[in-house]
Amino acid sequence: MDRDQRFTQLARELGHTFDGEIKIGGNYTPVVRDGDTLYVSGQIPRVGDEVLGVGAVGAQVDLPSAKQAAAVCALRALAFIQRAAGSLEHVRAVPRMTVFVRCTPDFTLHSEVADGASDVLVNVLGPAGVHSRTSVGVLQLPKGAAVEVDLIATLNRP
Amino acid sequence: MDRDQRFTQLARELGHTFDGEIKIGGNYTPVVRDGDTLYVSGQIPRVGDEVLGVGAVGAQVDLPSAKQAAAVCALRALAFIQRAAGSLEHVRAVPRMTVFVRCTPDFTLHSEVADGASDVLVNVLGPAGVHSRTSVGVLQLPKGAAVEVDLIATLNRP
Amino acid sequence: MDRDQRFTQLARELGHTFDGEIKIGGNYTPVVRDGDTLYVSGQIPRVGDEVLGVGAVGAQVDLPSAKQAAAVCALRALAFIQRAAGSLEHVRAVPRMTVFVRCTPDFTLHSEVADGASDVLVNVLGPAGVHSRTSVGVLQLPKGAAVEVDLIATLNRP
Repeated sequence: MDRDQRFTQLARELGHTFDGEIKIGGNYTPVVRDGDTLYVSGQIPRVGDEVLGVGAVGAQVDLPSAKQAAAVCALRALAFIQRAAGSLEHVRAVPRMTVFVRCTPDFTLHSEVADGASDVLVNVLGPAGVHSRTSVGVLQLPKGAAVEVDLIATLNRP
Repeated sequence: MDRDQRFTQLARELGHTFDGEIKIGGNYTPVVRDGDTLYVSGQIPRVGDEVLGVGAVGAQVDLPSAKQAAAVCALRALAFIQRAAGSLEHVRAVPRMTVFVRCTPDFTLHSEVADGASDVLVNVLGPAGVHSRTSVGVLQLPKGAAVEVDLIATLNRP
Repeated sequence: MDRDQRFTQLARELGHTFDGEIKIGGNYTPVVRDGDTLYVSGQIPRVGDEVLGVGAVGAQVDLPSAKQAAAVCALRALAFIQRAAGSLEHVRAVPRMTVFVRCTPDFTLHSEVADGASDVLVNVLGPAGVHSRTSVGVLQLPKGAAVEVDLIATLNRP
């Protein structure tokens, strides 16, 4: 099974599809390719019009739900990379991922939330998905989402 | 009208000038050029000695003022790029912008605040200014600013 | 004295050693090298099993302690760069550092906290350590740390 197939399977297991997600136009864009580097915009756990995981982790959102939300963010990021690159097979590395966790003042398991996103990257991309990571706890996120994830990927030169 | 002229015009329309903003020296610097990539430090909406937009968005600062503050941050970033590159005409892409919004616990329109900065990039740079973006809501920012913006730009090779 | 010696000396002055810090394995990693760029994961002020500086800056953690915690984060980042690159002598630039400060709602001296990390970079690396920087105030950080620092470094081509 290649990476694109693993991506589709994992998205299906989570009960989601990311077809038709790339919006064209606007002053910012979900992914910018510059040379062989792709910068993916911050992704909230949105599937279609629904945001999965709204609220503060530690209060309205528990740890398993937050990890799942982080996984959906990572899948969205991969969907954008797949479209921009043609195939996830072209990914050389994911050097950086940043995970913003909307949390209560006492919640300190940001790394554990971020593992939900990290696992997706490695499950789909294999060793190329092993990344550096920064996880922080923020006060709020767009649309009240519990998690937001952005990342940088690089592509193999043809 | 070229990009440098559009920059000057837009700064004038906002009633600001960014002459003389680059501080030399210190252990960090507003912009670092490494190869053809420019990394611009986090900019608050400071003009001269005054910070425009101090307070939490959703409380002391309303959405229009926050968007305006984000626009000033983006103009400052462009001012540094212009100095470092000689002219904004040399910008190839702005692959990444991150917008930190100091907000109340209930404020979720971070993307709308960030639009103030995104619009500046595209108004000045045209298609080269279309960027990836991450917007988050944070508890505080340096000097109590309502918004902080950092970005990465790349330059055309001569 | 070369950079590696300055690093060792500075770590000793702070009473710390960073031997044996690189964990192997896992879905993310402290540092990813992609081409001549190193991305270092977010570092909290952990030395061995102890986190130095736990709490909110402005409440449980005062400014001098927060600066010291930021310095430890930067030393950890340098330790990872040293291992990945063989020697700090190979560092060409540190184009970006981001400093997340866990703080009280009223604390606005994030730049002053970040100076603790900036000083380490320049003390060890000299002019190559002069970086762009973003400092923000967040609600929480992993393990309740007062500061988290990530950065990007580039290496000289052989």
